[in-house]
Parts: sequence; structure tokens; C-alpha cells
Amino acid sequence: MDQLDFIRSLAEVKDSKILLLVLDGLGGLATEPGGKTELETARTPNLDSLARESSCGLMELVAPGITPGSGPGHLALFGYDPITYIIQRGALEAAGIDFPQQPGDVATRANFCTIDAAGNITDRRAGRIPTEESAPLCALLQREIKLEGVELFVQPVQEHRAVVVFRGKGLGDQVHDTDPQQTGIPPLPPRVSSDDPASKRTAEFAAKFLGRVREVLRGKHPKANMMMLRGFSLRPHLPQFGDVYKLKAAAEATYPMYRGLARLVGMEILTPRATFAECMEEVAANWAKFDFFFLHYKYTDSRGEDGNFAKKVEAVETVDAEVPKLLALKPDVLAVTGDHSTPSKLASHSWHPVPVLVRSPYVRADGLTKFGESACVRGSLGHFPGVQLMPLLLANALRLAKYGA
Amino acid sequence: MDQLDFIRSLAEVKDSKILLLVLDGLGGLATEPGGKTELETARTPNLDSLARESSCGLMELVAPGITPGSGPGHLALFGYDPITYIIQRGALEAAGIDFPQQPGDVATRANFCTIDAAGNITDRRAGRIPTEESAPLCALLQREIKLEGVELFVQPVQEHRAVVVFRGKGLGDQVHDTDPQQTGIPPLPPRVSSDDPASKRTAEFAAKFLGRVREVLRGKHPKANMMMLRGFSLRPHLPQFGDVYKLKAAAEATYPMYRGLARLVGMEILTPRATFAECMEEVAANWAKFDFFFLHYKYTDSRGEDGNFAKKVEAVETVDAEVPKLLALKPDVLAVTGDHSTPSKLASHSWHPVPVLVRSPYVRADGLTKFGESACVRGSLGHFPGVQLMPLLLANALRLAKYGA
Repeated sequence: MDQLDFIRSLAEVKDSKILLLVLDGLGGLATEPGGKTELETARTPNLDSLARESSCGLMELVAPGITPGSGPGHLALFGYDPITYIIQRGALEAAGIDFPQQPGDVATRANFCTIDAAGNITDRRAGRIPTEESAPLCALLQREIKLEGVELFVQPVQEHRAVVVFRGKGLGDQVHDTDPQQTGIPPLPPRVSSDDPASKRTAEFAAKFLGRVREVLRGKHPKANMMMLRGFSLRPHLPQFGDVYKLKAAAEATYPMYRGLARLVGMEILTPRATFAECMEEVAANWAKFDFFFLHYKYTDSRGEDGNFAKKVEAVETVDAEVPKLLALKPDVLAVTGDHSTPSKLASHSWHPVPVLVRSPYVRADGLTKFGESACVRGSLGHFPGVQLMPLLLANALRLAKYGA
Repeated sequence: MDQLDFIRSLAEVKDSKILLLVLDGLGGLATEPGGKTELETARTPNLDSLARESSCGLMELVAPGITPGSGPGHLALFGYDPITYIIQRGALEAAGIDFPQQPGDVATRANFCTIDAAGNITDRRAGRIPTEESAPLCALLQREIKLEGVELFVQPVQEHRAVVVFRGKGLGDQVHDTDPQQTGIPPLPPRVSSDDPASKRTAEFAAKFLGRVREVLRGKHPKANMMMLRGFSLRPHLPQFGDVYKLKAAAEATYPMYRGLARLVGMEILTPRATFAECMEEVAANWAKFDFFFLHYKYTDSRGEDGNFAKKVEAVETVDAEVPKLLALKPDVLAVTGDHSTPSKLASHSWHPVPVLVRSPYVRADGLTKFGESACVRGSLGHFPGVQLMPLLLANALRLAKYGA
């Protein structure tokens, strides 16, 4: 049986509350053999105190040796096998700008490009046009282009990148990219990759849209005079949190990508706030309304990606300072972990397993004196796949029935 | 998705080098409760020093409780699920004598046997005829038997055992054994086990071959006057190392079986050498030409199989003395482990998990002070399936792309 079906068959509604705090890219590496990681270096009296009262361990979000992207890392945290459940590019881009893709919407990743008078591509990225120039062009296209039978959304992402969404009845997503991945030839027409009539419908709308894009952009910008569409994707069919886990779940995240991912699994999205202290306030203000909170903190990952050990240490300490406010909410179950490692030594996501702590009145407390990668090796949760975290949290919230008589 | 397809989709060519040192049957047992294993008893200053800088753990080559044969143990080390990928007996025997079975070749395990004047089997193993007598008989058969349309190879293994390979166009391997597994009746004729015309072709050649064997052996040996064929097998379809992992791989092994297994997964075979020191020289001489080295040491297993604790300890120490030469090659990733345990207390392969260390600039060093079974229980790699070793080595060599955006 599928893991989610199995959990669905056991999940029960209770009034206990679960708080999942994700420090993006939490896991790290020492800069030298025998040294300490960023998390181990950070002064974290509150997380350390939590670790003492928690069951701890190390999680593999995808599998040993595999470096998770943000999508797979979070799907695993949410309990969805990240190899079975795939979010295609268009849907991921839409999620990434917090665009609420509805069932039936076809989302695409769009690139502004440059074509010459003959219609051949001379620059696939329109000279990496700055966002300040691409955003108004998106607004122009949104305003000027109307197509009978379909609603259009043209939204900027960054530089030459945008999201175009087609909303209408009976649209399919089996449509090839129009980016030929080379210059000197025209963009490809949107062609279907299967016999699916719904996808033919999408391809026809996409062709009309791109024809209008060329007309509308003519003479408006020296480089960005055309668009190409990639990764046509319907909203992925992800089982929904409320249905599977019987949880009323909310997400608080400063960065749009994480709100987007949370929305795809059916969480409600709280007002995004800029600082972690403000995010905490938002969670506190909504505490009575939900029984599961996904609270996402981005800067541990950002500083790791920058290769800045000291700043990643600081980012961890920023979160640690807010932990007492988390505890003041009295969650029945509190988990602190990451969606992957981002060691500043690698300045990128990495494959290293992520430390995790789970605290509830029903854990076997490990008595560790420090929340860190090395300490968690000795934790009683052991070394386990990320998709097993959600059942563990539900169990600790006394929300999973006994299996079998 | 199949694990190998998944890894193939992420593997990238880089210039990093990986060295996998396999001490056959490395894992052991203490002779008394609370005592030390062979590895723990051995004086291994170099392996201990490596363990300090490495991530360590314990591997299950097949699954807990399962005792791996050499084939499954090595397939797991090479990243192939040993329950999915099976090497049939004929192909394994061919690999075991280092016979380079080509695609299309049908290999069989052949036994010399004794038949009486009526053609009935009186001894299925020809009195376990010594190799000194069976080898010349194989040479005689090889010399005397020619069949139109197929090339034949008759090669001795040991005692009454030999390998017979049929090489020709359009041969299949769905052919039943000719050994009836009892005496008092004649050997069975080669019969096909499916409607496959290619297998019928093989059965016809096998029948002609066995007819000639009986004629040629008549009066040549008091006991070995006939042969029976078992385990007809085409070369197994194993995904190839170069294709899956994007690695140019080489194998150095004193014993033919391990060269054979390495060849089946597409490794190039270096010149076999007798001592471990010489094997090291061979690896060093070829260091520039490859980016993955499988270096196999047999005697830890042999001494374990002999039930000789002290000699197994010595075998480990022999390898330890050469470790500085390994390090002098400066592999980016170095792993030391076994293909299964062979405790001298059991004088056989066993199911016990095998200690493993992985050293690279990107591991979380566990700081263990000893490389041994008990110490590895506390290692950060935890307790993991053998097939996960290869992805971990590739990750540490920075040869695996991020999964998902």
C-alpha cells in the first residue's frame, strides 16, 4: 500500500497541535576535519535545551548521497515520497512566485528572448534583462492580450524569467517547450506531445498567445521582443494534508517558493512577514485556528549558499533566540529540522543528512546536551528517511490509531 | 523509478577519483561474548587513523539476516540490487574463472561424471576427479570437438567442475540442465524450457557437443567418461558502470571471480597480481587512466573460511600496512569495506553487517579511534543497505547533480 494511503487509514482528528519548524539548509559541514559545523558552532541555548528533552536523529530527505532541491526536500518533510511525487517546472515556478495555481490551470515557465527581423532567436535570455525592465513588460502583456475562451496570467519572476498561466476549461499539459535550446532558428510552435485533445487546446491557446506577444512587444524593448514557454504543467495531483492527515494546516514563510509548496499540499497560507520574529507573531496570532503549523526560515540556506560560515551561524542564532516564543505557544509536538543540508563549505545544497529533534510529552528523551549533527548521530530516532517524519509527528500528537487489532 | 535509472539521471562526469577497497569477508565475530572481532584484534594504525577522518557505519549487503554469496555481495557494493539482478550459474561460473563471456555467448557449468556401458550414471561427480586430471581432459575436449556454426570453449574450474561456453549467432539460454540429479539413469538430453527458437538452437548444439564428449572421452579416464551441463546462461544484462555512473572504472583483483564480476558491470580489468602490495602497484601504475578503482583483497575471507582467527587478523594487518600507499595516490574519495562478513568462528560467510568507512573532504568525520564493528555502530552513516554505498561515493566525489529544483 502507498504510504500516504496507509497513514490516511490511521489518522484521526484530535485537538493536539503540531509545529514543524524548518530551518532551510540546516545541515552543514566543519571547515576542517574534526571541526564543528555551523549549527554546532552557533550558540543555541534554547535549541540545546530542546534537544535534551527530545528524541533526535538524522534524516535523509531523498536517499543517501542524493542532494535534494527545495521541492523534493519539502515534499519529503510533508510525507510525500519525493521520487513518486514530482512537481514539473511550470508548476514549481508558479509555486515559486506564490501564484495560486488552481486545478485545471496550465502553468509555464516563460523566458523573454530576442529575435531578429526574420524571426530567428539571437539571444535566448534577452541579455538577461533586469527585473525592473521585465516586470513592466509582463504587465503590458497582461493588459494587452485577451484570448477568447481562456484567462491569462503573465507574472514576472526575475530577470528574463516569468510565469504564464492559462486558465480555462479542458486544458491539458502534454505540450512541448517552444524553446529550441539554440539560437539562429525561430522559436518552435507549441506542439502537443500526445494525442490528448485537451493538450491540443492548450497548444492552440499558447500559439495565439505567442503571436500576440510578438505583436505587443514589437518596438517596446531593444532586447526583449519575444517569449518562449517551457514546462507546461497542470497543478500536480498531490494528496491533500487535510484529507491524508486530518490536519488543518497553515504555512508561514517569508519566501514565496515555500508558501507555494505548502499551498500545493493543501495548507492555508498565513500573511508572509519579513523577519523570523514577525513570522512567529503571525503563527501566534493564528494559533487557535489550525492544528498544524509549517514555519519556514530561509536564511540558514541563503548564508550557506553564500559560502558564509559565520553568517550561517548567526542565522541559526537568530532562530534560537525566538525558541522561547515557540514554546510559549505550548505545541503538543514540536519538530525542528531542515529540508536538506547547505554547508557553507560547499556553498550549495548537499546530500548530508539533516539533524532533527522531536519533542512531545511522549518521546524518549535522548538527553543530548547539544543540537547538532554529531550529537544527533547518537539520537534515538536514528538515521531515517524524511517521509517518515510526518507519521512520527502524528503519533506524538496521538493522532494515529493502532494498526490492526 | 529504478534506483540505477535514478542515479543515471543525476550522475555527471567530473575529474575526481574514487577508490573502493574491498576486504573480502571483512566482518567477523569475537570468539567469546565481550571479546573482540578479528578486525578489532588486528593492529591497524592506518585504518584507525582513516576511521578518525571518515564517516563510518555498518552495511547490510542484501538484507538483515541474509548471508550474501560473493556475487550478490559485490553486486550490492557496485550499487545493483542483488535481489533484482541475478547472475545465473553458468554466467557466474564463467565469471569465476575470469572467462570473458560476450553478449550472445551461452555459458554452462559442466560436471565430469561416470556412466556405465548402458549409459546410466554411476557417479555424478566422476569420483571428484582431481583438477590435475580434469584439466587435461578439458584440453582434450577443446582440441577434439569442432561443431559447424558454433565456437566452443571448454575450461577447467576445479576437480570435476568445468565451464563450457557456446559462442555463435542466435543462441538462447532457456535450456534445462542435463544432470537428472540422480544415478542409475542416463543424463537427460538438452531440452528447451520455452518455445524460443534461439534456445532450441542452443539445445541442438549442446546435444551434438555431448555426443562428441562421450566419443572423445571413451577409454581416456577410468571415471570421467561423460559430462553433464547445468545453468545455461547468456551474459546477464547488467547496466554498465560507465553508462550509469559516468565512471571509467578499473578492477584489480588477485582472484578470478572478482575480476569476472567486475567485468560483468563494465569495469576494465587490470593485470592480476599475487600479493596485495603488487596489486597496489598495479593500481598506482594505472591511476591516471581511470576515475574509479575497485581493489579486491581475498585473504580476509579465505582465512575466515579456514576458521583461523589469528590468520584472519594477520590478513587485515597485511592490508593495513599498505594503506599509506593508497593515501599517497590522493583519491578524492576512499571507501574501505567488505562484501559480507566471514567470521572465523563460523568458518563461512555470514549475515553480519560489514563495517565501512568513507573518507573525502566533504564527510562529517566521526572521530572514531578504531576501525571495527563496534566502533562503526556509532558512525554517522548509520546502518544502511549496501546498494546505497555507490551514490554516497559519487556524492562525495561531487559527481551527482541536485535532484529537483
